[in-house]
Amino acid sequence: MTHIKNYIKENKDRFLEELFELIRIPSISSESEHKDDMIKAAELWKEYILVAGADKVEIFETEGNPVVYGEKIIDPNLPTVLVYAHYDVMPVDPIELWKTKPFEPIIRDDKIFARGADDDKGQGFMHAKAFEYLVKTDQLPCNVKFMIEGEEEIGSVHLSKFCMNYIEMLKADVILVSDTGIIAQDIPSITTGLRGLSYVEVEITGPNKDLHSGIFGGAVANPANILAKMIASLTDENNKVTIPGFYDDVEIVSTEERAEMAKAPFNLEEYKNALDIEEVSGEKGYSTSERTGIRPSLDVNGIWGGYIGEGAKTVIPSKASAKISMRLVPNQNNEKISKLIAKHLVEIAPKSVKVNVKALHGGQAYVSPTDMPAYRAADKAYKEAFDKKPVPVRSGGSIPIISAFEKILGTKSILMGFGLESDAIHSPNENYPLFNFFKGIETITYFYKYFVEEMKK
Amino acid sequence: MTHIKNYIKENKDRFLEELFELIRIPSISSESEHKDDMIKAAELWKEYILVAGADKVEIFETEGNPVVYGEKIIDPNLPTVLVYAHYDVMPVDPIELWKTKPFEPIIRDDKIFARGADDDKGQGFMHAKAFEYLVKTDQLPCNVKFMIEGEEEIGSVHLSKFCMNYIEMLKADVILVSDTGIIAQDIPSITTGLRGLSYVEVEITGPNKDLHSGIFGGAVANPANILAKMIASLTDENNKVTIPGFYDDVEIVSTEERAEMAKAPFNLEEYKNALDIEEVSGEKGYSTSERTGIRPSLDVNGIWGGYIGEGAKTVIPSKASAKISMRLVPNQNNEKISKLIAKHLVEIAPKSVKVNVKALHGGQAYVSPTDMPAYRAADKAYKEAFDKKPVPVRSGGSIPIISAFEKILGTKSILMGFGLESDAIHSPNENYPLFNFFKGIETITYFYKYFVEEMKK
Repeated sequence: MTHIKNYIKENKDRFLEELFELIRIPSISSESEHKDDMIKAAELWKEYILVAGADKVEIFETEGNPVVYGEKIIDPNLPTVLVYAHYDVMPVDPIELWKTKPFEPIIRDDKIFARGADDDKGQGFMHAKAFEYLVKTDQLPCNVKFMIEGEEEIGSVHLSKFCMNYIEMLKADVILVSDTGIIAQDIPSITTGLRGLSYVEVEITGPNKDLHSGIFGGAVANPANILAKMIASLTDENNKVTIPGFYDDVEIVSTEERAEMAKAPFNLEEYKNALDIEEVSGEKGYSTSERTGIRPSLDVNGIWGGYIGEGAKTVIPSKASAKISMRLVPNQNNEKISKLIAKHLVEIAPKSVKVNVKALHGGQAYVSPTDMPAYRAADKAYKEAFDKKPVPVRSGGSIPIISAFEKILGTKSILMGFGLESDAIHSPNENYPLFNFFKGIETITYFYKYFVEEMKK
Repeated sequence: MTHIKNYIKENKDRFLEELFELIRIPSISSESEHKDDMIKAAELWKEYILVAGADKVEIFETEGNPVVYGEKIIDPNLPTVLVYAHYDVMPVDPIELWKTKPFEPIIRDDKIFARGADDDKGQGFMHAKAFEYLVKTDQLPCNVKFMIEGEEEIGSVHLSKFCMNYIEMLKADVILVSDTGIIAQDIPSITTGLRGLSYVEVEITGPNKDLHSGIFGGAVANPANILAKMIASLTDENNKVTIPGFYDDVEIVSTEERAEMAKAPFNLEEYKNALDIEEVSGEKGYSTSERTGIRPSLDVNGIWGGYIGEGAKTVIPSKASAKISMRLVPNQNNEKISKLIAKHLVEIAPKSVKVNVKALHGGQAYVSPTDMPAYRAADKAYKEAFDKKPVPVRSGGSIPIISAFEKILGTKSILMGFGLESDAIHSPNENYPLFNFFKGIETITYFYKYFVEEMKK
């Protein structure tokens, strides 16, 4: 019987060609002109799951982008794994910083460079290939379901409703997701926590038109200056968020657990060098890993207003805007936090301007217990593939739908990601090392084996 | 002999057609793709001055945009007026807010709508027509020189050098400028002061690439948040500028002078209604007119960083930037102020980011004495044209080159502007009422008459 390592060796060019075909579809969910591309990406996923060996695959329409659902039920009495991935990707701006075109994947330095190479086309596609191997070599030990959505990067807007409508169809023992990372190629890790997210857009309106800053400067509130003051006041000198009630529900992690977490390898100098920064910066009293793992944060994701072209233009802008998001930790409710910041922004704005706050998207934080069968199976799978026991880590990122899955379907997720911090997801020159892509496929096949074993215990 | 009023009546369509031809050239000095348009605008001005009756007109190359110089010397013993204007205009962004195309002038509600309709094609062109009338009707009472530049909106970068090179040629008894405004169509006014300007662009760099705000949020300084904090700290709770040394040289206006200024008509409710703001805002202890007339100010003219497209993108931007300008009052040195803010911005930035400050342009403030012959002549000219004595006002705007003229040429300027606050200069839908255009031509012809009389005294 062909071992997975040999199967990968024999099929690697085909695997890459298939993945590249998926990547070439510019399925940017946040930009409405890509509507058709979403459908194309869903259709290609459908074909891939079918060809890999599913019994049936269907594209489900939603009010937004379609969901691809497929399944192979070999025995209703066996455990069922529901694979979740997303076919949508982030926008490509700033496009001028890409060394090659974002939707023309190429291999350079043993890495695939393209938007979606990691997040989540590369990582999602590993599941199609692991599944293909298990089916073709007659080793599939359990039932498998696929749910591939097209709105993850915009907050999985319609997936909760889809889950509610198809609870029975989506029934599974665990949800298997590759949309996170490992510490390094020689330090495997499993994500045991995800932060939540609250994302808002605030628009400040001053005068009803752009004004000449000479004639009006000093006498009329400038919305860009006001916005700067408002944003500045959202965090204090210790980098704590000042929104009243923001920390009320924050999960307090015990000293013991923090001590345990501190054992994960972390090199501050390498971290700073990789980002070319002289100093890290964050909430006083916490380490860098804690700041991204167990503490909430607040970031301006975008800010704009006034004249941003070449040279000088002496205007007082009529409007200034910012996109502001907060990463949340367990127990913080994202809808409550979105309301708190909206209320706070309105309260702190001076009467000289108007404020409009729009909640964009959000999700709850999630904790993945290390004592469930899926975790033990993942632990063994990584150990077999990487020859090293994986480290459990709390990640700073968010996959808002993961906590919704638990709430709606009652199913826990296991986060078996294979990305690296250097993959530049959401950034120009996103990439995914071939090592991680192939190692991921291998690890996933081991997971199925161990998962069925663990479920029998 | 034809009176100026009749001359205008007989020629108004031609005047407008000629002005429109000038306006149709998109001579935006801050955008390098308009290089050819600058030359076209200069050539058209040359033709207009020549046809109006100048003895000679020449286009002088500079390291930037050319300067048009023309003259009519009727008698070296008579006084000489040097007319200054500029053929360059501001950019048109945000273009989507224009009701009609900015470079296709149209008349609506008795106003000319177009970029440059007022600033400074409309106002500058009045001088060509006033001059034409005086020459054609044989009433020119003195020598006239024209100096029309193409870089006023970007700080008259090369005009100082031009003046230094041609001191003898530019010799005059007064410089006559129409690039300011009157309070209202029935409240004529003469600008007796202009604020100076210091304009800088600051760029904050954090990490060397855009980062995923989940993975890094809370642990790495976000340049957009930092920029907001830096901008916020530039003004205090009383809207005073906090840059050390900023107020050191500010001219202190006496209580008597402030009381005199307070007599100029000003309706706060109308002012707020016109801008659709609930409250004005500015330096504590000063009125709105004082805030723009005799006090310096600081405004963000543009701010940008991170994701500014549709929807949500969870990035920590690598860079964030702002254009910041300060309006200055007499005695403040713009170069000193640019250095002070640059030094201050670098000092207040945390070590977690890099700061780059670039001075864009600037100019000194200017005061026009009310006891000089040109002021008395202007006073009489407005009185004759508007049938009302004009009010002397300190304007908030800047024409940086005016103070340079005094320094280099030793010549004072008289600021006979005819614009209205509602002309929306530097904004979408810039306009210039036909009333002001024609009344301006009329008033300028009276000025020549009275100026020669006043000079004889």
